[in-house]
Amino acid sequence: MTHWVRFEVDAHTGFGTLAGNQIAVHRGDMFTGAVATAEVLHIDAVKLLVPCQPAKLIGLANNSNSLALKHGVPTPLYPHYFIKPPNTFLPCGETILSPGEHAKRIFYEAELGIVIGKVCKHVSEEAADDHIFGYTCVNDVTAFQLLDVDPHFPQWTRAKAFDTFAPFGPVIRTGLELEQLSVRAILNGRERQNYLLSDLVFSPRQIISLLSAEMTLFPGDLIACGTGPGALPMKSGTTIEIVIDGIGTLSNTFH
Amino acid sequence: MTHWVRFEVDAHTGFGTLAGNQIAVHRGDMFTGAVATAEVLHIDAVKLLVPCQPAKLIGLANNSNSLALKHGVPTPLYPHYFIKPPNTFLPCGETILSPGEHAKRIFYEAELGIVIGKVCKHVSEEAADDHIFGYTCVNDVTAFQLLDVDPHFPQWTRAKAFDTFAPFGPVIRTGLELEQLSVRAILNGRERQNYLLSDLVFSPRQIISLLSAEMTLFPGDLIACGTGPGALPMKSGTTIEIVIDGIGTLSNTFH
Repeated sequence: MTHWVRFEVDAHTGFGTLAGNQIAVHRGDMFTGAVATAEVLHIDAVKLLVPCQPAKLIGLANNSNSLALKHGVPTPLYPHYFIKPPNTFLPCGETILSPGEHAKRIFYEAELGIVIGKVCKHVSEEAADDHIFGYTCVNDVTAFQLLDVDPHFPQWTRAKAFDTFAPFGPVIRTGLELEQLSVRAILNGRERQNYLLSDLVFSPRQIISLLSAEMTLFPGDLIACGTGPGALPMKSGTTIEIVIDGIGTLSNTFH
Repeated sequence: MTHWVRFEVDAHTGFGTLAGNQIAVHRGDMFTGAVATAEVLHIDAVKLLVPCQPAKLIGLANNSNSLALKHGVPTPLYPHYFIKPPNTFLPCGETILSPGEHAKRIFYEAELGIVIGKVCKHVSEEAADDHIFGYTCVNDVTAFQLLDVDPHFPQWTRAKAFDTFAPFGPVIRTGLELEQLSVRAILNGRERQNYLLSDLVFSPRQIISLLSAEMTLFPGDLIACGTGPGALPMKSGTTIEIVIDGIGTLSNTFH
């Protein structure tokens, strides 16, 4: 059970394991062979970065049984997904930027993030856990109005791809048992989302198995599992926290 | 006017400018400061790689005036786009892999690729050329059947994201005048696509301007401009060439 972080200090980047307020600095590769150094840093002495650098961030849509029931639509037979490009990545503590005139009504979406640990190609559900490095919190920020603005092409990528629209972190937690966990969104101190991971249509194991049958997943790739009920638009000045017990709190403001 | 290539030789990667069969090896960064070394390599002595490593490959759909006319649909008011993840990238000369049972009827799509040279954020059409590093050939390989398999979610990303589904290269050509150019697809030696770049709904300048108003584009990012009429499914064993005069020929087989 480890909480991995990436950080910047004195204009260089590093990574390590977080325990309390102390980061045990490591060297090597987080996924294929990290070695502890003797160096320990206080968390306040560094700037936290996103905890990994995904070559692809895959986001699922329509992956909530209760949302499907509420909207009277069938649950997907195969995961519905899109990709959020690297310009969307945002560390804990930084500001989600409003697109201004380009898009109104910007929604938070609290989600579990799966961080891949080993190359995945045709991985079975049974073998999926062995390929998952750990889990993180994701806020899949979405300009919802854009999805339906053009009746000839639902603009999923566009709605998800503005700069700063994928806060994730602050840590990657290894050795986490998901079964009883819930994902929460706290908007200005008030709980707005609280759904059990058991409400997901496709579980992390199923997602790994189904996606890796069609595309290779690589260490550090991130999959956001889709959100549950309660996503709402944010006003300027909002503080939005995504909380998953055992992982931590991803906190950002929106301006 | 330069043809940039990336290559692998003796288990290390390099880049340089191609003239005839000779690569003038460079060091530094292709986009921000490449410096010629004294080393020259014969093209047959190296393995060509994709000519850049995009942090995001943005693909446009429905960007052909003649296809819109043919299908009786309006042209888009804003670019329709999706993202192809890095597992799709494939160098010239390598094999496009059939997804087998996961998807039938795999289409080639011959397209112009724009390679970004400078950070783009709110770039005007007039300033776009100054932010474009050069152009390359792209084959936007697509599992078309998957687009419509689920009536609740057109699966653009899924249809485009199989491993090897984004051949591009072999070079990035700088200093290219696009106005009179055509994009061709040659299937087993027979021309199947041949459309003028003037048929694009959104020109490269307009694409840079519209996209950079919503997301930051970075050096090395690649935008595939969308295809014209004539895309068809490939049979196993097919050789597919994407040809743009002044850039070159992107050749791959499909198995």
